[in-house]
Amino acid sequence: MEEEKRETQNQLAEEEDQIVNPWEVAAKDGGKIDYDKLIDKFGCQRLDQTLIDRVHRLTGRPPHVFLRRGVFFAHRDFNEILDAYEKGKKFYLYTGRGPSSEALHLGHLVPFMFTKYLQDVFRVPLVIQLTDDEKCMWKNLTVEESQRLARENAKDIIACGFDITRTFIFSDFDYVGGAFYKNMVKVAKCVTLNKVQGIFGFSGEDHIGKISFPPVQAVPSFPSSFPHLFSGKDDLRCLIPCAIDQDPYFRMTRDAAPRIGYHKPSLIESTFFPALQGETGKMSASDPNSAIYVTDSAKVIKSKINKYAFSGGQDSVEKHRQLGANLEVDISVKYLNFFLEDDAELEHIKKEYAAGRMLTGEVKGRLGSVLSEIVERHRAARASVTDEVVDAFMAARPLPNMFD
Amino acid sequence: MEEEKRETQNQLAEEEDQIVNPWEVAAKDGGKIDYDKLIDKFGCQRLDQTLIDRVHRLTGRPPHVFLRRGVFFAHRDFNEILDAYEKGKKFYLYTGRGPSSEALHLGHLVPFMFTKYLQDVFRVPLVIQLTDDEKCMWKNLTVEESQRLARENAKDIIACGFDITRTFIFSDFDYVGGAFYKNMVKVAKCVTLNKVQGIFGFSGEDHIGKISFPPVQAVPSFPSSFPHLFSGKDDLRCLIPCAIDQDPYFRMTRDAAPRIGYHKPSLIESTFFPALQGETGKMSASDPNSAIYVTDSAKVIKSKINKYAFSGGQDSVEKHRQLGANLEVDISVKYLNFFLEDDAELEHIKKEYAAGRMLTGEVKGRLGSVLSEIVERHRAARASVTDEVVDAFMAARPLPNMFD
Repeated sequence: MEEEKRETQNQLAEEEDQIVNPWEVAAKDGGKIDYDKLIDKFGCQRLDQTLIDRVHRLTGRPPHVFLRRGVFFAHRDFNEILDAYEKGKKFYLYTGRGPSSEALHLGHLVPFMFTKYLQDVFRVPLVIQLTDDEKCMWKNLTVEESQRLARENAKDIIACGFDITRTFIFSDFDYVGGAFYKNMVKVAKCVTLNKVQGIFGFSGEDHIGKISFPPVQAVPSFPSSFPHLFSGKDDLRCLIPCAIDQDPYFRMTRDAAPRIGYHKPSLIESTFFPALQGETGKMSASDPNSAIYVTDSAKVIKSKINKYAFSGGQDSVEKHRQLGANLEVDISVKYLNFFLEDDAELEHIKKEYAAGRMLTGEVKGRLGSVLSEIVERHRAARASVTDEVVDAFMAARPLPNMFD
Repeated sequence: MEEEKRETQNQLAEEEDQIVNPWEVAAKDGGKIDYDKLIDKFGCQRLDQTLIDRVHRLTGRPPHVFLRRGVFFAHRDFNEILDAYEKGKKFYLYTGRGPSSEALHLGHLVPFMFTKYLQDVFRVPLVIQLTDDEKCMWKNLTVEESQRLARENAKDIIACGFDITRTFIFSDFDYVGGAFYKNMVKVAKCVTLNKVQGIFGFSGEDHIGKISFPPVQAVPSFPSSFPHLFSGKDDLRCLIPCAIDQDPYFRMTRDAAPRIGYHKPSLIESTFFPALQGETGKMSASDPNSAIYVTDSAKVIKSKINKYAFSGGQDSVEKHRQLGANLEVDISVKYLNFFLEDDAELEHIKKEYAAGRMLTGEVKGRLGSVLSEIVERHRAARASVTDEVVDAFMAARPLPNMFD
């Protein structure tokens, strides 16, 4: 009841405020997303420095740039994962993607880059869900087209460098059934129609496929959904790295989990990767100029940045030298914050740019080289991902040494 | 829209009238179910003598007693199945059972006895769905218990004599997935929440498992849900023998079918098998004395009939000799109408009983022997259904000669 009440309040609050759900992200009045407010509203916790230091200590490796720079900024019970890990208990990772587009943009790579880091430093297994059923239903794609996109997207995901001995990628259309379906039914029994309408805003005009879907995204949180991986390991905990717009699914999942005898999954949640035009929400798939795609050439990347990346610099060189740049709105700085690994260089750029000693063009130039390098590396990695490699990652098989 | 409107009207009508849906059957004010009204309301067609004669002619076999006596009394496009059959085109049969109880009663056997007849005379394949997922959700059984009951019920179903070379029995928990799940998603996309609420009366307090279920019962109507049986036979028509309370599922299915490129399934629908206490609805699972179970001994059967079978006879022998029995309410006559094969003997009993020359005790005696014989035959058949036989019927396998 507590939860129900909060949902309703959230719905009301949303109407006059920012909107963040799995299908829509919009800041209030075209401003910026207020992440503090989001944490309050969703009821998750801020990922503070103590926790980041703890990750550093437990893994013996420097925390990922996305941790150091606050890209992954919120969590649910991440500390419990670390408590268990400290006692020698492993966990597994679960993340996913809705395959609605042919080519991925840099924002799409953020959770996968971070998940790869988590897999590497904790040496744990990972399941990646491709929700082709969801996209078939929401985007009105055919089953065949959704499955084709799922495989194409799998290539980009694999190109992020996941360890095939620890990673299982699956398409819902292929994998739903058996133990997975049994868990879907168990979850569905715990969730009323009122509840999903409160959480996701479904209406009477929505088709029942939408109402049926949340359990599909919920159940990879439970090890028993993967008997070929985790048979007899029902006690294994799950950590979900994702963007915070996916939180509603896992609030629902965490509510159901104890009622069906499972651990609540833990979450570690990121901000959104901003559009080139400014930080008012997620990027728009309908505007190719709002994002850098992994298929863009170095020339296109340079041109997109120069043309579209919103600048916090001043209108004229004179004024810029005098007042400096507003880093809070400058997209090039935001993007460097995600992708320039060198902390010292980033600090230098921010300092010089803010003081007016560095011009927007120089910052954009540096960003262009950073992104081109990432995209080029990605393209080369993706080129080596054959259909056979995809099949190998997507085979429902045991991963015998996944915890070694 | 036409359909939507009718649904709403039906809902309103139901409030002041009889209730017939997959979970509740109740006549108006404790009276009898008005089947004519039901045909009008649901929009199906009466199964008339012309159609029965046509079955006789096409199969070269006398129509089943359930056809001759109006037990199967309504249909949807059964004539189209016969049209196609006449031109040499085969079809497949689909029926099912929600496994919510250990032992079946005679009413549960009615659709299976009739389906066996259809399989025999048309020589066609048959799929039998055990909706263990449904019962897990509606009856709040565990997954394991629902699956156990499904297997137990499968034994009773197999005992009805189905041809293993033409019959595939499946549990939803085992079989949902792959092509079956893809069809579930296709159907779900065609059905709005408003629509299922109109058809099935779901409310906001119902869990989303219920709202997700109708596509599960819908998709066995489409041959592509069974690639191991009907691969490349997408054009095959489906005939569903069932009790008329299942009609709402298939109204929904028939509405969706042409939108996803499939034939509408045809239906042949039965009345309900009345309770011993009188013909006001279906039997109650909570009252074991309302029904004859296939596990009842001859002694128990005799005693249940004598004690509980509602009599249309008069209070005293004198009055009975004078006025005769009211056959319209007499349960022994109703039951004989289902199960006494000999038309001449049934006519004789009805005539003598109505005229008062035969007493209730005599009719009950004859019914006792008829039912004991059926139950004894069933018990012997079931005893030979081993777990291996169940496994064989439930193996997802090709049925190479299913149309021969």
